[in-house]
Amino acid sequence: MSTLVQKYGGSSLANRKKIEKVADRVQKAWDEWERVVVIVSAMGDTTDELINLAHEIADDPDPREMDMLLNTGEQISISLLTMALQKRDIPAVSLTGSQLGVATTDRHQKARIKDIDQDRVQEELDRGRVVVAAGFQGVTEDNEYTTLGRGGSDTTAVALAAKLEARCEIYTDVAGIHTCDPGLVERARCLEKISYEEMMEMASLGAEVIHPRAVELACKYEVPLYVGDAFSQDEGTDIGEETEYLEESVITGMAVNLDDIQINLRGVKKRKDMLSKIFETFGEAGINIDMISQLMNGENKMQLSFTAPAEDFQETEKILKSREQSWNVKNWWINEDICKMSVIGPGMRSQPGVAASVFNLMQQYDIMVRMVTTSEIKISWLIPTADHEKAAELVAREFDLAD
Amino acid sequence: MSTLVQKYGGSSLANRKKIEKVADRVQKAWDEWERVVVIVSAMGDTTDELINLAHEIADDPDPREMDMLLNTGEQISISLLTMALQKRDIPAVSLTGSQLGVATTDRHQKARIKDIDQDRVQEELDRGRVVVAAGFQGVTEDNEYTTLGRGGSDTTAVALAAKLEARCEIYTDVAGIHTCDPGLVERARCLEKISYEEMMEMASLGAEVIHPRAVELACKYEVPLYVGDAFSQDEGTDIGEETEYLEESVITGMAVNLDDIQINLRGVKKRKDMLSKIFETFGEAGINIDMISQLMNGENKMQLSFTAPAEDFQETEKILKSREQSWNVKNWWINEDICKMSVIGPGMRSQPGVAASVFNLMQQYDIMVRMVTTSEIKISWLIPTADHEKAAELVAREFDLAD
Repeated sequence: MSTLVQKYGGSSLANRKKIEKVADRVQKAWDEWERVVVIVSAMGDTTDELINLAHEIADDPDPREMDMLLNTGEQISISLLTMALQKRDIPAVSLTGSQLGVATTDRHQKARIKDIDQDRVQEELDRGRVVVAAGFQGVTEDNEYTTLGRGGSDTTAVALAAKLEARCEIYTDVAGIHTCDPGLVERARCLEKISYEEMMEMASLGAEVIHPRAVELACKYEVPLYVGDAFSQDEGTDIGEETEYLEESVITGMAVNLDDIQINLRGVKKRKDMLSKIFETFGEAGINIDMISQLMNGENKMQLSFTAPAEDFQETEKILKSREQSWNVKNWWINEDICKMSVIGPGMRSQPGVAASVFNLMQQYDIMVRMVTTSEIKISWLIPTADHEKAAELVAREFDLAD
Repeated sequence: MSTLVQKYGGSSLANRKKIEKVADRVQKAWDEWERVVVIVSAMGDTTDELINLAHEIADDPDPREMDMLLNTGEQISISLLTMALQKRDIPAVSLTGSQLGVATTDRHQKARIKDIDQDRVQEELDRGRVVVAAGFQGVTEDNEYTTLGRGGSDTTAVALAAKLEARCEIYTDVAGIHTCDPGLVERARCLEKISYEEMMEMASLGAEVIHPRAVELACKYEVPLYVGDAFSQDEGTDIGEETEYLEESVITGMAVNLDDIQINLRGVKKRKDMLSKIFETFGEAGINIDMISQLMNGENKMQLSFTAPAEDFQETEKILKSREQSWNVKNWWINEDICKMSVIGPGMRSQPGVAASVFNLMQQYDIMVRMVTTSEIKISWLIPTADHEKAAELVAREFDLAD
């Protein structure tokens, strides 16, 4: 039986008017699909307001109690949206994460879904009801409430769609996945479709329409995904298996990220276990290292550069100060004045000239490239922040990313 | 093992400062008692705000969805108070009504507690934790969330105290049970103690410090109750078994209620089943009839007067209009200009002169008494609204209710 899972983000539910509009959209889905499940986030800024409330009380509130508190956000959304649907004579019922049977690990604030017990949701769907369920939430074996951390609601929606063998539509406040940031490149195109693989690269590079964790899950269980604007009739983007076109465009999209820092270590004494030691240390501190580039300087010294999120600047500095001795680092510095640009596209595999095109372009317009890394379907490079607008325009034009 | 259950109302938890003060008070209890459970209501006006949110969406929201929505109110309170206790190095844990094991009937918005499964709360108390639990909430056999309706949090506290064989302290924003409304009679006294029976009469007569439903439960299970001001060190009122004093005061307290209407039916044809028919009709409409007085007018006609809550005026009028024919009522009218006064005291049983004193007093000061009813420990009478302040002063003076 054909089942649809829709997910609406917090900004799409920020007030009564928006909730009514979402209800209209669900009504349309209800007319067209046999079974409909709606996953919702907390209304507007509710989660932030709850976090502020907690921080008024305690600097470092207990994660279990934070989850108890944050769980209320989605619970408000599900009941209000259900009321709006019932007003439209649609039989609907709200379910919390716990009632939905989202069994998670017991790591509060960052729980992972272990399984979803479908009994209740199937029962409600069999009774002909639209199920409006809380995203972001789960429950442990011991009946403790958890939250799934960043991208949690997207993850709930995709996980449930996987269980129900459903299509999953993620509605947000942008039109879909663009070739590049429309705020940066005028007339950036909205993609009609994109593969899971490309989407994962795009998502982790700052095109934050859908969380990479949810895309990963969708890819694993082959859930047909769709991302679109909650309040527009414009077509959004389908995310699915890679399809081959007769004439494939080389580059699907470009990501521009200004929120990274570059860490440079020079004169590091060569030792077999040095690299693993360094990255283990950052990993244990919860700092997500992205681009990595390593070169030898002379016989026994190496030079190492890598990027990390700018929000981890202080923690990074602390680590470097405390370890420079034991790591035998001669000197090090952190560069904040960087922009990470990336182009993504499966076409790269068959057309090896992309990297060369990028470097030519940068050189031709005097934009210094500080670092480069490549993968099968992606090239990333660092440039000075000041040049990022010019570079974005050039790349978009070169690879035909805007109309 | 000695166990204490404390309950804090919404006005005592309205903001961060008040939550901190409540945490201080719980800390004191924690120093003195082996096991402490705290039952809380939703913060300040949260419940009203949630109700308004729902009414923005639907005129007549589904009771199940209302319960889903309202449940979030206490859930916010329990997590914040728990954080405040943990900051004071008190091991504490929050539990929702569902986690507390409050099993209820499935009548949403007005559920009744069937039982409380103590396993979880005992387990937490055994681990040496203060349990901060949501009042007002419960869960059905089908894992559906319910709310207990008016007086729900008081009821949760008393029910749990009954289960744990604990003392139950209800903290609110008034100092305890007064002989009469301090807003009406200056220097009304706060009672040191009062019996369950008297308290039930006082509570249902408008001294809304504690809900009669909770007092009834406390009486049934002989739970030692205490009512006091959350933010004052003044002694409140103990509520328990009736105790005999050598010199008993005749009257414990007085209640003055301006929220009633008086319904008068005249020329009702005498029929055996007439009275039961009339009161059944009001009962089915959910209208709570209080004082009833019936007299015969001549051979086959009776005159009937009774009081009902003023909020049911329209519904009452509707019933009378539609039934005047079938009930054979010659004429009827509703009097809104009434005040119900009551004096309560177990001493009445041994001193039958109380009613006479009341009537003398009213007559002496030209206050018309429109209707009277009496019970073992209570006399209630109706007077014109305009006279209620004067009458309250007179009665308080006559029966020594103020200093």
